[in-house]
Amino acid sequence: MAGEGGMALLDDAARLPGEAGRDLVLKVDAIVAGVHFFADDPPADIAWKALAVNLSDLAAKGATPRGFLLALALPPDWTEDWLAAFSQGLQAGADATGCPLLGGDTVKTPGPLTISVTALGSVPAGRMPVRMAAKAGDAILVSGAIGDAALGLALRLDPDAAWAGALNGADRAHLLDRYLRPQPRLTLAPALLAHARAAMDVSDGLVGDLRKMLKASGLGGRLDLDAVPLSRAAAAAVAREPALLERAVTGGDDYEILCTVAASEVSAFRAHAAALGVPMTPIGDVVASTPAELLLSRGGAPVSLAQGSFSHF
Amino acid sequence: MAGEGGMALLDDAARLPGEAGRDLVLKVDAIVAGVHFFADDPPADIAWKALAVNLSDLAAKGATPRGFLLALALPPDWTEDWLAAFSQGLQAGADATGCPLLGGDTVKTPGPLTISVTALGSVPAGRMPVRMAAKAGDAILVSGAIGDAALGLALRLDPDAAWAGALNGADRAHLLDRYLRPQPRLTLAPALLAHARAAMDVSDGLVGDLRKMLKASGLGGRLDLDAVPLSRAAAAAVAREPALLERAVTGGDDYEILCTVAASEVSAFRAHAAALGVPMTPIGDVVASTPAELLLSRGGAPVSLAQGSFSHF
Repeated sequence: MAGEGGMALLDDAARLPGEAGRDLVLKVDAIVAGVHFFADDPPADIAWKALAVNLSDLAAKGATPRGFLLALALPPDWTEDWLAAFSQGLQAGADATGCPLLGGDTVKTPGPLTISVTALGSVPAGRMPVRMAAKAGDAILVSGAIGDAALGLALRLDPDAAWAGALNGADRAHLLDRYLRPQPRLTLAPALLAHARAAMDVSDGLVGDLRKMLKASGLGGRLDLDAVPLSRAAAAAVAREPALLERAVTGGDDYEILCTVAASEVSAFRAHAAALGVPMTPIGDVVASTPAELLLSRGGAPVSLAQGSFSHF
Repeated sequence: MAGEGGMALLDDAARLPGEAGRDLVLKVDAIVAGVHFFADDPPADIAWKALAVNLSDLAAKGATPRGFLLALALPPDWTEDWLAAFSQGLQAGADATGCPLLGGDTVKTPGPLTISVTALGSVPAGRMPVRMAAKAGDAILVSGAIGDAALGLALRLDPDAAWAGALNGADRAHLLDRYLRPQPRLTLAPALLAHARAAMDVSDGLVGDLRKMLKASGLGGRLDLDAVPLSRAAAAAVAREPALLERAVTGGDDYEILCTVAASEVSAFRAHAAALGVPMTPIGDVVASTPAELLLSRGGAPVSLAQGSFSHF
C-alpha cells in the first residue's frame, strides 16, 4: 500500500545508509486508544507517547536513535485538526530525540485509534546489552524514580483519591505528566554500553520486569523495596497511604532503565550516569538461588506482593 | 512495552548487523480486518498478506529482505488456536521469503484485528530505484498480470456475478487466490537494480499508481490499455463484461511491479527479468507533456476512466 494519508509522510520505501561496525537495534510497539492512552489526550501527547515508549527500549539497549516508521490507524471520527496536531507533536518528538520519521502508512479503522511505531537505533557491533546477561553477584540498579506514572494514572482515574490530599499542585502535575509524557533515557546510552551487563526498560512494572530479566538470565535476585527511588510526589503519596508502594513498584509506564552491573563497576557506572544527568540507584543484587526467584524485602524483612506484574496484555 | 503476548516473539529489542556499502530499505504497512482483509479469512492467509504487502514494497526497490517486525492488535474474540495458526502462517511466510521475524509487540484492542508489519531489506548503497526518477522517453513496464486481485475480491463479494459465468474452476481459484495471497516479486530485484529508473509496487490500482509515479517525476505519460497484461481468468472475465477492464486497471491489491526503463534498455531488462521468472510487459511511455498528465488509449483512441485510483484510505 502506498500510504497516502493526511500526513506528509514519505511516499516510497525509506532508505537508511548501512553502518559498518555497528549493529541495528529495532523495536516495535503498538498503542491503542482506551488501552494505552486516553482517546481525548492531547494529540501531541499521544504522538509523543507512541514515539517515547519505543525510544525507551532503544535507550535500554544503549542505542543511538536513527529513525522511526509509523503505522497509523485512524478511527472514523478523525479530523484534519487532530491529525495536524498529532503530526506537529510527532515532529517535535522526532526533533527532541534526534530520531527522524523515515516513513509511514495511514489507514482507516472502524475501531479505536491505533498507533504502531518501529524505532531503529544503532550500537557498536556486538555491544547491545541484553536482558539475559545478568550474572550472580551483579548489582541491580534502576534509573530515575519508580511509580510516578502508575500514580499519575491513578490520579487521572480518581482525582479526588484520599491520598491525593498529600500532594501539592506541583506534585500532581509531576505525576500526571509522567504518565502522559514518558521520558526515554536516551542520554544514558554511553554509560550502559560501558558498564551494564543486562538491561531493559521498565514498562510493565519494576517487580515484574525484574522477574523477567532474572528469569531470562536463569538467576534469582533480591530487591530491597526501601531502596526503590521515589520522587517527592510519590514519596508523599506513599507516606499518606503506604499500600501505594505496591502500586508504585508493580504499576506500568515508568520507562526507566533497569540494569545489572558487576559489583566492582557500580561506582564507576553511577558516576558515569550522573555525569550524563541520570541518577542510577542500587536496589538489590543478582543471586544464584535455587529455585531462581526474586525475593523482596522491606525494613529488612521478606515481603510478598498481592499482585504480580501489571501487564497491558 | 515488553510485548509478552501469545506469540513466541523475541522479548527484547532486535539486533541486526550493519552492512557496509549497502543501504537499508524500510517499509511499514498496516492492515485492518474488514478494511484490507476479511476477519474470517484463514489466519495463515492473513499473516501471509500482512507480510507480503510489505515485501512487495521491498521488491519494488530491488531490495533483499533482511527481516521484519510485527505489531499485532488482537480483538476481544481472539483464541489461542487462531494465534497458533497465524503464527505458523507467519513463520511459513518468513521461511518462503527469507525474511525472518525479528521482533514484535502484541496488544489487546477493543476494535478489529490490526496488523502492522515493518519490513527491512537492503540494496547496494545509492542504488535504490525511487518513484520520482522517471525520465521522458522511458518505457513503462509492469510485471505479471494486472486486475486479478480486484476481480478476485469482486468474485468474493458476489460469487454469482454474471461475468463469473465465463470462468472455469481454475480461473475462479486463480482470482480468489491472487486476492488472498499476493505474491511479492522479490526475485525481480537484480533486474530492477540493473535496469530500472523509477519503480514502485502496484497496490492501489495500476492507473492511479502510475499517475503517482509520473506526478512524482513531474512528467506525463501514455498508457495503452490494450497492452496491459491480463491473466487467462481476467481476460475471460473482461471478454464477457468489457467494463471490467476498468476495474482491473484501477482496482487494488495487484502487488506487481511498475517501473520505467530507458528505451534502449527495454530488451535487456525484459530478458533479465524473464531469466528470473518474471514477465515484464511494456504498457506505455513517459513523455514531457504540459500539463503533466497520463493519457489512456484503447484501440488507438483516447479514453478516460470514470473513477480514479482505488485507494484503501
